[in-house]
Amino acid sequence: MEPRIDAATSIAEIATRYVFDPPRDDDPVIEFLSPEELAQAFAGVIPIELGDNVPARSAEALASAAELVVRHSVHTSHPRFFNQNFAGPDPVAVIGDWLGAALNTTNATFEAAPVFTLMESALLRKLGRVAGYPVSDEPGSLPPGLFAPGGSSATLYALQLARHRHQPDIVRVGASADRLAIFVSDAGHYAAVKSAALLGIGMDNVIKVAADDEGAMDVTALRAEITTARERGLTPLAVIATAGTTVTSAFDAIDEIADVCDAEELWLHVDGCWGGSALFSSSHRHRLAGVERSDSFVWNLHKMMGVTQQCTALLVRDPGQLGPCFATGADYIFQPDKLHAEFDSGDRHFQCARRVDALKLWLTWQAYGDEGFEARIDHAVAMADHVRHRIRSSDDEFATIVEGDFSNVVFVWVPPELRPFDLDSLAPDHHAALHVLAPRIKGRMQAEGTVMMGYQPVAEINTFRFILNNSNVEPADIDVTLEFISQYATEEWKGV
Amino acid sequence: MEPRIDAATSIAEIATRYVFDPPRDDDPVIEFLSPEELAQAFAGVIPIELGDNVPARSAEALASAAELVVRHSVHTSHPRFFNQNFAGPDPVAVIGDWLGAALNTTNATFEAAPVFTLMESALLRKLGRVAGYPVSDEPGSLPPGLFAPGGSSATLYALQLARHRHQPDIVRVGASADRLAIFVSDAGHYAAVKSAALLGIGMDNVIKVAADDEGAMDVTALRAEITTARERGLTPLAVIATAGTTVTSAFDAIDEIADVCDAEELWLHVDGCWGGSALFSSSHRHRLAGVERSDSFVWNLHKMMGVTQQCTALLVRDPGQLGPCFATGADYIFQPDKLHAEFDSGDRHFQCARRVDALKLWLTWQAYGDEGFEARIDHAVAMADHVRHRIRSSDDEFATIVEGDFSNVVFVWVPPELRPFDLDSLAPDHHAALHVLAPRIKGRMQAEGTVMMGYQPVAEINTFRFILNNSNVEPADIDVTLEFISQYATEEWKGV
Repeated sequence: MEPRIDAATSIAEIATRYVFDPPRDDDPVIEFLSPEELAQAFAGVIPIELGDNVPARSAEALASAAELVVRHSVHTSHPRFFNQNFAGPDPVAVIGDWLGAALNTTNATFEAAPVFTLMESALLRKLGRVAGYPVSDEPGSLPPGLFAPGGSSATLYALQLARHRHQPDIVRVGASADRLAIFVSDAGHYAAVKSAALLGIGMDNVIKVAADDEGAMDVTALRAEITTARERGLTPLAVIATAGTTVTSAFDAIDEIADVCDAEELWLHVDGCWGGSALFSSSHRHRLAGVERSDSFVWNLHKMMGVTQQCTALLVRDPGQLGPCFATGADYIFQPDKLHAEFDSGDRHFQCARRVDALKLWLTWQAYGDEGFEARIDHAVAMADHVRHRIRSSDDEFATIVEGDFSNVVFVWVPPELRPFDLDSLAPDHHAALHVLAPRIKGRMQAEGTVMMGYQPVAEINTFRFILNNSNVEPADIDVTLEFISQYATEEWKGV
Repeated sequence: MEPRIDAATSIAEIATRYVFDPPRDDDPVIEFLSPEELAQAFAGVIPIELGDNVPARSAEALASAAELVVRHSVHTSHPRFFNQNFAGPDPVAVIGDWLGAALNTTNATFEAAPVFTLMESALLRKLGRVAGYPVSDEPGSLPPGLFAPGGSSATLYALQLARHRHQPDIVRVGASADRLAIFVSDAGHYAAVKSAALLGIGMDNVIKVAADDEGAMDVTALRAEITTARERGLTPLAVIATAGTTVTSAFDAIDEIADVCDAEELWLHVDGCWGGSALFSSSHRHRLAGVERSDSFVWNLHKMMGVTQQCTALLVRDPGQLGPCFATGADYIFQPDKLHAEFDSGDRHFQCARRVDALKLWLTWQAYGDEGFEARIDHAVAMADHVRHRIRSSDDEFATIVEGDFSNVVFVWVPPELRPFDLDSLAPDHHAALHVLAPRIKGRMQAEGTVMMGYQPVAEINTFRFILNNSNVEPADIDVTLEFISQYATEEWKGV
């Protein structure tokens, strides 16, 4: 069977053009079509649905379909794309991803991935040092963690490590009858409850600790919740401190929480999926003070660093526990008598075959250096500062709900009759009207392709959220975005 | 901060050249270096270890490093690369992967991935129909499954679905005190025990059912094991039928196992990570007869179909349970009042952000069509048949340990004094010598870069395994591979 070089060549040209001449400025962030319209657009080229007999398509049809994919996808590197997961993929990271895909091997063994195995270990050691973890530089020593296919998976693995320390025979005999409890702030990520469900701990045993108005955990409340949990017969297992919440990019006081964990003998997991990258900046790494005391720390390099998805590091204080927690000793895969088998990571991991996420991070880091990584974080916060400045000087047209001081700003557009905005004295009908306004503005952004920005209920009002991880964003992009929102809001407010 | 277009351009050229002019024929499968030698090779360009101050590197240095990456990586599309995870990445799939990486979005929401959301649903419906699952074509109906970042993760999710049916409140309150048992053949994949450990069920409660000499589950033994487990106070939960074992590519008798699951009211999960793709071939789909009766079915398209990693579909009989099992209703991500939110997959999934694995599969499928997919499977088995033929006509120089009749052949090289080979009458010293021979042959293959092939202990002897998923393999490649093994074995046998 001959490979379809014709089709691959055409699509490669489209992909390359996209990376090196990406949509910018007046280009739309998305040429939005509804599901029905998309189906129709593809029907003329290659239908999206695969019928009962899929024929081999011509290279021309495949190229046309790829063009349609590009045209109607979201342009995540566009400077008016704002997102909590990723934004502004870096060209070096994209191409590093390409090289990894071309080589298509697994990071699980030295045999299959000699270079990547060493790169992954080197990156984990470097990330560990950046976090202040004790990292051994002994040749052949275990790297302080692993790469995972996302923050949720890494959180899952971390909580299993916590449970394994609590009950070392769990791997063999299963969970004891202890009803375990996990503590996370009510502004923390839902990966905690998802993981608790999957582990068999149960979402109800994830205790949501009150957060302050900015979104940081109330540590006094944490102490009280732990006491209450013990009184209820639960066995406190772990506290998750959030370094950069999804909505407000707030940082829990890790050092203070570490004191609690020490006193209570609990596992401390730091969810730095969002804000871990603040460690790269000498101006912002103080936000994670105490992370070096944690037992585990998850850090998504794909969120703030422009590395393509997925690129998640789970750092652990005691890498010696990864094997006992995850190994099965499958000798048909991890042959102990094989050359250099001691470099194999597969038996320290839940997954078997894994993409070589290390490569794209390694190339990106080498391309920009530590200073470039620092600059990226500083730029993000500078842009968020610009948002805060613009809102403060907007003559009350915009109001922050949570101003924050890191990468995110939660805000509303304020109707003229409600300026200056006072959330606490808002009449119920205005409250309800503001709540439905955001989805309408969002609909306009999407339909016109001008801006991609998320909203979420805060104080029971749908509020927009500027998220400044996209390194392509400059002040003018923020100004234009606010102008679009002003325009849409003014027009839509009349109809709500 | 300016993006490093210079570096990205150079590395893109290297990656493109690699895809369109890949190593073949006389090129080595790998230019193998030891960890120390690799560190040294990179030291002259960019050291693999990231020191305390990583400078931004020149485009030239980055390109040289990328060249080193390529030179010393395993060439997984080379026709002498044989592997149980993947082999022979298809150029269309690689480039589809590139396009997905360039767009760098998540498949979790229609908002972020309008095209890919529809493609993923369409693929799941098509795969579901191929498997004979009941698939609704109602507009807006739930697709019959999800994509996962690998077979182990998909197995984990499937077993959680099984447990959730058994105990619907598990998500909220955690696992009941029932000691659950899972049944899988002793030739099954270790994902079952890894998942059991993570779920808190425990590896000891994964009952390994005896398999026959070819590697297929003994269903009579299964019935007995279920009875024994109940007598021991365990609660049988699920049976995993393996469609294509890792070592011998054996297929369990799914239909017969489904009868047992019906009678015992157990969840039937089919691990088709390897052999699910046999469904594409009218000559081989009979091997999975009964899969349409399963409750869940995991199928890695990256293993036999040349689609790059990861590309894993988890099909489920009742997609309505994905939400209750995995949803958390995080309204800051999955806003129910958002346009087309009913197409969002995120709240039916454990993961949040996910790569758009659907795109590369969709493009590959459209490029080759159903007939091309069928041809790929038929070619794989034809090549395995050629291996069997060559071994049978080797004048006893080679002997099959498990001949099989699908994609894998487990075999040994036989020293002249032991021909014809009789495993049962092998003297202990010969047994021991043969056991250490395979790692030595492997070392030679690796050092000379001629062949990449795995070995594993079968009958306590390290045996090689031809795995024929690489569509670039032709009979001559098999012949040359056997010649290399013959040469290395003859030379190394003198030393063992």
